Amino acid sequence: MIKVGIIGATGYAGQELVRLLLQHKEAEIVWYGSRSYVDEKYSAVFGNVFEIVEDLCKPDDLHELARQADVIFTATPQGYLAGVLDDEILSNAKVIDLSADYRIKDVAVYEKWYGIEHKSPQYIEEAVYGLCEINREKVRKARLIANPGCYPTCSTLTVYPLAKAGLIDMSTLIIDAKSGVSGAGRGAKVPNLYCEVNESCKPYGVASHRHTPEIEEQLSYAAGTDVTLSFTPHLIPMSRGILITAYAKYKEGTTKEQIRMAYEEAYKNEYFVRLLEDGVCPETRWVKGSNFVDVGVKMDERTGRVIMMGAMDNITKGAAGQAVQNMNLLFGLEETEGIRLIPIVP
Amino acid sequence: MIKVGIIGATGYAGQELVRLLLQHKEAEIVWYGSRSYVDEKYSAVFGNVFEIVEDLCKPDDLHELARQADVIFTATPQGYLAGVLDDEILSNAKVIDLSADYRIKDVAVYEKWYGIEHKSPQYIEEAVYGLCEINREKVRKARLIANPGCYPTCSTLTVYPLAKAGLIDMSTLIIDAKSGVSGAGRGAKVPNLYCEVNESCKPYGVASHRHTPEIEEQLSYAAGTDVTLSFTPHLIPMSRGILITAYAKYKEGTTKEQIRMAYEEAYKNEYFVRLLEDGVCPETRWVKGSNFVDVGVKMDERTGRVIMMGAMDNITKGAAGQAVQNMNLLFGLEETEGIRLIPIVP
Amino acid sequence: MIKVGIIGATGYAGQELVRLLLQHKEAEIVWYGSRSYVDEKYSAVFGNVFEIVEDLCKPDDLHELARQADVIFTATPQGYLAGVLDDEILSNAKVIDLSADYRIKDVAVYEKWYGIEHKSPQYIEEAVYGLCEINREKVRKARLIANPGCYPTCSTLTVYPLAKAGLIDMSTLIIDAKSGVSGAGRGAKVPNLYCEVNESCKPYGVASHRHTPEIEEQLSYAAGTDVTLSFTPHLIPMSRGILITAYAKYKEGTTKEQIRMAYEEAYKNEYFVRLLEDGVCPETRWVKGSNFVDVGVKMDERTGRVIMMGAMDNITKGAAGQAVQNMNLLFGLEETEGIRLIPIVP
Amino acid sequence: MIKVGIIGATGYAGQELVRLLLQHKEAEIVWYGSRSYVDEKYSAVFGNVFEIVEDLCKPDDLHELARQADVIFTATPQGYLAGVLDDEILSNAKVIDLSADYRIKDVAVYEKWYGIEHKSPQYIEEAVYGLCEINREKVRKARLIANPGCYPTCSTLTVYPLAKAGLIDMSTLIIDAKSGVSGAGRGAKVPNLYCEVNESCKPYGVASHRHTPEIEEQLSYAAGTDVTLSFTPHLIPMSRGILITAYAKYKEGTTKEQIRMAYEEAYKNEYFVRLLEDGVCPETRWVKGSNFVDVGVKMDERTGRVIMMGAMDNITKGAAGQAVQNMNLLFGLEETEGIRLIPIVP
Repeated sequence: MIKVGIIGATGYAGQELVRLLLQHKEAEIVWYGSRSYVDEKYSAVFGNVFEIVEDLCKPDDLHELARQADVIFTATPQGYLAGVLDDEILSNAKVIDLSADYRIKDVAVYEKWYGIEHKSPQYIEEAVYGLCEINREKVRKARLIANPGCYPTCSTLTVYPLAKAGLIDMSTLIIDAKSGVSGAGRGAKVPNLYCEVNESCKPYGVASHRHTPEIEEQLSYAAGTDVTLSFTPHLIPMSRGILITAYAKYKEGTTKEQIRMAYEEAYKNEYFVRLLEDGVCPETRWVKGSNFVDVGVKMDERTGRVIMMGAMDNITKGAAGQAVQNMNLLFGLEETEGIRLIPIVP
Repeated sequence: MIKVGIIGATGYAGQELVRLLLQHKEAEIVWYGSRSYVDEKYSAVFGNVFEIVEDLCKPDDLHELARQADVIFTATPQGYLAGVLDDEILSNAKVIDLSADYRIKDVAVYEKWYGIEHKSPQYIEEAVYGLCEINREKVRKARLIANPGCYPTCSTLTVYPLAKAGLIDMSTLIIDAKSGVSGAGRGAKVPNLYCEVNESCKPYGVASHRHTPEIEEQLSYAAGTDVTLSFTPHLIPMSRGILITAYAKYKEGTTKEQIRMAYEEAYKNEYFVRLLEDGVCPETRWVKGSNFVDVGVKMDERTGRVIMMGAMDNITKGAAGQAVQNMNLLFGLEETEGIRLIPIVP
Repeated sequence: MIKVGIIGATGYAGQELVRLLLQHKEAEIVWYGSRSYVDEKYSAVFGNVFEIVEDLCKPDDLHELARQADVIFTATPQGYLAGVLDDEILSNAKVIDLSADYRIKDVAVYEKWYGIEHKSPQYIEEAVYGLCEINREKVRKARLIANPGCYPTCSTLTVYPLAKAGLIDMSTLIIDAKSGVSGAGRGAKVPNLYCEVNESCKPYGVASHRHTPEIEEQLSYAAGTDVTLSFTPHLIPMSRGILITAYAKYKEGTTKEQIRMAYEEAYKNEYFVRLLEDGVCPETRWVKGSNFVDVGVKMDERTGRVIMMGAMDNITKGAAGQAVQNMNLLFGLEETEGIRLIPIVP
Repeated sequence: MIKVGIIGATGYAGQELVRLLLQHKEAEIVWYGSRSYVDEKYSAVFGNVFEIVEDLCKPDDLHELARQADVIFTATPQGYLAGVLDDEILSNAKVIDLSADYRIKDVAVYEKWYGIEHKSPQYIEEAVYGLCEINREKVRKARLIANPGCYPTCSTLTVYPLAKAGLIDMSTLIIDAKSGVSGAGRGAKVPNLYCEVNESCKPYGVASHRHTPEIEEQLSYAAGTDVTLSFTPHLIPMSRGILITAYAKYKEGTTKEQIRMAYEEAYKNEYFVRLLEDGVCPETRWVKGSNFVDVGVKMDERTGRVIMMGAMDNITKGAAGQAVQNMNLLFGLEETEGIRLIPIVP
């Protein structure tokens, strides 16, 4: 059994890690870290695991945890892990970081978009960006995983095939994203109260959202050229789910068959990416609670654009599920172990 | 592998059966019955199982199905199964009926509350009421299971310990229930449209809801006396979940310890019924997507009443989950197989 | 024009006062009090009045406000008004208090249920409980109004006719209430976050909710005898609305006509209380954004009980709308001025 | 008093007309048309107007209605009005059509996108497109108003200033729209059931939505050149509200001041279009139940694009409210009469 520790176990991503790992055959949670609830019963905070988890919450002692665990998940605010990570931790345990600290290779870009100083840039180089469908082999050999952000996961997987195949003009790429509220975290803030969010829709972080450079970096690798794109997230009144609608001009002469083929080629062996049938659009309800990303594509000859669409559960494939997928790769397990859960409807 | 057929596989209970059985180690679905979608791909209706289920929907041919399957789940409207069930079917397959056709022992009561004639009353006697926590041994030996209704399951399990222990005056029992919208089914009806249900709450079936005699019958067995109670369901704007709040006068001299003890005694060995700690109230979010029923109780000395509370997922323990639990018992499997799913939050 | 000041203008009740008073012909808001947003533009907090309200938020200076305004609404936490009220304020302006400070005549009961010391009990006696349908004449002559709580308003108006007519056994009275989330206020608390409340239902304050003694006091006046009742509120996932379901044994020999007549008698001249037709149940959607209370009643001869049901908008008739109704009475205006708004659907 | 008739009074737009007109000083509803509920009490269908409206529903007799009313609102399916409109009707009453029948000047375009034959193309020319902010003077003199679609109203008003000012490259224009469920109508269809829509988000009508040519036509007028654009609507789980996010390249040399100025110039005298302060994004909650459109704009120098955003209530400004605004203009009333309602929060 792989011994697992979770820092930030009472956030939405953290508790989803608990849900998934409790149903994982090869993992055992040995540390429920939660600064806000130290010494309280974990199941008193998350009643869903009442009579299933008897542990108390523990503090954020990463060094001690690294001695007890084989792998550590950090579902923590930006800057936390960068501030404490050192060689001792990394020599004792694998680390899968759900924050943004090691996702962006250019530390200056990170510091500019996040507005904080990076305290351990020396680990950025070795950190592997844990988008398994694209970096699978690198992940297997890593000791530090930068688990991708929710918007970047869905955006990248939605656009990747056409970027890779060179069928679209990357300078025309626009990504319009819609997210459920859990993406905003579990902090006690007025804007996330039920009555502030319910029955409303709003854009936020327009032209300034921190996930922009992460998406640009990943799509630049795919396209083999520097990509600058527009990214606009929106908050919509639901708990879980992300929907991506991406627009780009296709290159002259591109055919519908080429577009379809690019997606089929990219995802034919991917369990977690489901290429929808022609004419079907993704819906977040079909992936809820699962690690799937559903991807659809529509060529619009009237405008010369292709509309790329993706749906994903932001807490699962967008955070905890993908983190478990990375863990499976890191430890040589079957990649889908513990995360083959069927989406829950309705 | 147990060969399973589902009639009504595209309703909310039916599709939940699919979700659960696909994750069940010993079961294999051989028949996705759906009158409305015959010959269409099942996954075109329920996109959550896209690339997981390749089957087409089949018609309601119960006799043919009984030849192919070991067990049949009927998630069908009232009266359907009673109209077609015969010895041939029962000799070829076990039948677990999610409708009300065989739940009520007195056929006159059934006909009065449901307003339809019962077409095969000869099977009522042998049908076992599949509330596993109470009728476990009978279930094991049955060939026809009347899977309990959603309200009756939660109501009965919430009140049962005190009814059985004789600590409350059953003539004062009032059950106030709140249900998510999936309980109303997947039929295309104006009152169940999003805009009719969202941001609203209403009572319905006041003093006339069909689940009343079912609850009364079960609690009469528990109390050893005829029980007549008030039952008022309410529709609330959420997809899944039932919450029961029940009120009764406790008998003079009853102590808080006796009340607590009655619940502990009743449920100490029950995996799916979780007796909450003193002072904790059930919430439907803690059981979502799972087969758990969370039960809490509060003695109010000021009024001389005890308030009994229960929360359950109406589609899982209230329908499909309990049906699988019955199947497990029928086939000698571990009772929790396939339904140990951790509740999904948020 | 009546000059109006609001303390607590950025809470949910306070901002509803703003909405209603801006549409009131005889009122002008001169003070948008909000401790948390002093000197910020009010419309920067509540964007619905952008370009309509240009005022900045002001501090809680009740004495200065009393000099500038004819009437003050305090939509503030329990204990605030009791801590500052004095003769100077009351001699300068009428005060309509939306908190509980002056609702309960017995200060010991207040202090026990609210767990705080009452700082100005000398004003309790003169304060008029502003349930206009019942205390209309007293309200007209008052200078201090205790605006009723949301649950007490709906509960009292739902049960009042039968209590007054002596047709029910008050010792059997049980009130089961369901409320939208706005009733919990606009404070930044984890339990009121979207993802904590959405898709869930829970009871709270079981046998201990602070509105219990207020309801008991009002129904005791109606019944002419001391009433002790069970009151259980539930939180349900919607922004606005309260639904009350009340149960009591009717007295032997009571007829359906008597029950109906008691309601008709009580409410035939009441604009804001709508007695639904026989067989119709109230739904909160039909009163949203309005000052109406919809009331229905069902006699159940099978159990010997009557089920009384009421629906109301907790922010309007349950708080701000009723406060404006009280203001209208206090200043000799038409009682419905500014609050004849048609409920908004959907 | 203006005598008003409504055809389709039990749809969502129709009942909103009822709500608005009941609060309008100069209008009186004389005909509640509803094919599905003929001879039923209107308030039995829409309980919000119980005790306010006593009328029965009437059939769709447009000729008789035209004799009784001064103005007719048709909130009916596409093709209905085109099929019955004639000179007699138009000579007896003004007609405000909330369907698409007379919105598009090129009948071939209409027939292609709507897939139906237009039965009375002879009236298309004279019909005035009732986007009051742009066609105010023409509306005043019309007898047939084509009330704009919900998406086109919000899209056009959001993009209009920059299109008109020539500051953006219209060939790069992309409009990504999000709508509440009421936009899908009140028909009994499975996809609009609560459990199908709740907790989900999906695009639909991708590259084929019928509102596309309507938006293109209006923006072509503004830009003085033929516009072809990408338009993608999404369904999100809320009852009311539309949010538009539009993207375009600004022309070289354009400054932030020019962009801001274009909006200020366009809307400085418009009561119903609120230009948000710099840096503020629109949110649908701030316009709920009102006739406002909130518009914001963001210049993104990093990508060379401008992001234009608009929020609106789809039932009010997007249908019934705008229809009343048109009526006010047609009859020489104050344009805002009956529709100055403050948005309702939360």
